[in-house]
Amino acid sequence: MLKENRRFRLVSRPQGTPQADNFSFDRQPLPVAGDGQFVVRNHYASLDPAMRGWMDDLPSYMPPIELGDAVRAATIGVIVESKTPDYPVGQWVAGLHALEDYSLGAPGGTTRRIEPAAGVPITNYLSIMGGVGLTAYFGFFEECRPKAGDTILVSGAAGAVGSLVGQMASLAGCRTIGIAGGPEKCGRILARYGFSAAIDYKGKDVKELAAAIKAAAPDGLDIVFENVGGIPLDAALLNLRKGARVALCGLISEYNAPERIGARNLWPLIPAHASIRGVLATEFMTEFPAARAQLERWLVAGRLKIDEHVETGLDQAYAAFMRLFDGRHDGKLLLKIV
Amino acid sequence: MLKENRRFRLVSRPQGTPQADNFSFDRQPLPVAGDGQFVVRNHYASLDPAMRGWMDDLPSYMPPIELGDAVRAATIGVIVESKTPDYPVGQWVAGLHALEDYSLGAPGGTTRRIEPAAGVPITNYLSIMGGVGLTAYFGFFEECRPKAGDTILVSGAAGAVGSLVGQMASLAGCRTIGIAGGPEKCGRILARYGFSAAIDYKGKDVKELAAAIKAAAPDGLDIVFENVGGIPLDAALLNLRKGARVALCGLISEYNAPERIGARNLWPLIPAHASIRGVLATEFMTEFPAARAQLERWLVAGRLKIDEHVETGLDQAYAAFMRLFDGRHDGKLLLKIV
Repeated sequence: MLKENRRFRLVSRPQGTPQADNFSFDRQPLPVAGDGQFVVRNHYASLDPAMRGWMDDLPSYMPPIELGDAVRAATIGVIVESKTPDYPVGQWVAGLHALEDYSLGAPGGTTRRIEPAAGVPITNYLSIMGGVGLTAYFGFFEECRPKAGDTILVSGAAGAVGSLVGQMASLAGCRTIGIAGGPEKCGRILARYGFSAAIDYKGKDVKELAAAIKAAAPDGLDIVFENVGGIPLDAALLNLRKGARVALCGLISEYNAPERIGARNLWPLIPAHASIRGVLATEFMTEFPAARAQLERWLVAGRLKIDEHVETGLDQAYAAFMRLFDGRHDGKLLLKIV
Repeated sequence: MLKENRRFRLVSRPQGTPQADNFSFDRQPLPVAGDGQFVVRNHYASLDPAMRGWMDDLPSYMPPIELGDAVRAATIGVIVESKTPDYPVGQWVAGLHALEDYSLGAPGGTTRRIEPAAGVPITNYLSIMGGVGLTAYFGFFEECRPKAGDTILVSGAAGAVGSLVGQMASLAGCRTIGIAGGPEKCGRILARYGFSAAIDYKGKDVKELAAAIKAAAPDGLDIVFENVGGIPLDAALLNLRKGARVALCGLISEYNAPERIGARNLWPLIPAHASIRGVLATEFMTEFPAARAQLERWLVAGRLKIDEHVETGLDQAYAAFMRLFDGRHDGKLLLKIV
């Protein structure tokens, strides 16, 4: 056990793209559990686009990260000290903690004990059974209301959420079209994630991408699962069928932009009687245990595949986080802390 | 009865704002009813923003107006020749016809016979019991899913649809905030349409308008009924409560713009788990008779007020139509043909 707690802290709010000097490391004495708390040795942290939002001082579904605090992140680790009876020392635990060696935790919220199933890597409990899997699950099944035979377009299809949504849509009997960047990712979403068709967005403007979508889905789209925003979203909106559902899960193209981008082509929502709805998995928190059990069953049965890209070392937190925004990762981005 | 049929025709497709030379008049022989058809002498036509969309060669919920054809419009008039038994000569009839003296019509679609209630002006059957009333009714009750106590923001609140939505929202027990242009319209939506609060959008950018909305609705908006798009929509999206519903009824700010405008602030849909949905009253066509009966009851009981702005003369069609886009009309814009 270390004597000190290294923390990757937010020291100033990014304007656009986060810079290295928005962050700094410090070392603090180890946290001490109060009554009802535990201390977790963080082994892995999930690096998620949502963290970029928490760095802004804007109202959202949770408060911003305070300046000077360690950067909030979902982590998985082992309890090393406990003053809460159901969370004993030695227990694997996942929760919303921070990019640091040790975090104070407590039962409640998204905190949960992990009992890994045989043959399932512990990191899967931070990816497919974590926020990414739940976001894909509730975003797809609740917001997209899929019917067998529906045609779905997924942007960011090679990403963690996108690849899971594509596979879930296949399980639901949908025809799946994925948008990804470059031939390698397009090949992978076909071969590994079972998409019916792949479109490379690189070098295409809205009109060109809309034409490529129309070629892949001549009768239009019943469902759009949007992770990217900007050009892919505007192109998708030009291809809606009557009654189409657009699940707005992420807008990674604009998180570091100086201004919001949004969508220009809202007009087709009217003649298509279509909707755009934000995906917020935490609205379904009471259903998380059942959803995780379903995800674990699919995983163990080999019906869902999850890829993880693991960067190593808390000291690499900034460089690892930035991989979220330039596509230099394949699957769920994780940081190995120990 | 005239010997000829004057027609206000579309002769070229507008690029941006329609120009006078996109249209021309001609005179044709009177139409002759075939089997199952009637000829209607048009008395009034409804001038609607949707007509601008029909002038473009774009896929929509109905085909574009063909070049050379009279401009499609909802009209109300009296049958002067009939070869269909339930639509006799002398019958008032409303339907989707055109800006011309005489139209060929047939039962089906939105065509319907009118039996005016005592004391109700015939034009009300083209406004409140026509597309405007039905759009307000289904847009509000179906897409906004109102609950008593909800706070609703209506843009274009002094307009035909907006003024009706505000009154229906009051009937449903909602708190109503209207956005309108200038002190006269703001005063009118308070005094005549019973809005709880009025905001003048003129001279305000997104940030300033968002602040004015926040001042009027400190706890945020449960419902947004959007008729305008652009700045009002972007400002509304910064004030959504959890679970907010945005009914997208119109985007009049962009119909004549060189490019679509859309919305920049889609991001708040995610943390608010909110939705934007297109309003398309024709999806509820089987419920139109019941809705018209309800609207007529409210109208006769004085619980709904509709204002109509009537321009006179088919030869004034272009100038009258352009009033849709510059706010120079109070209430439903109609053209009196005879």
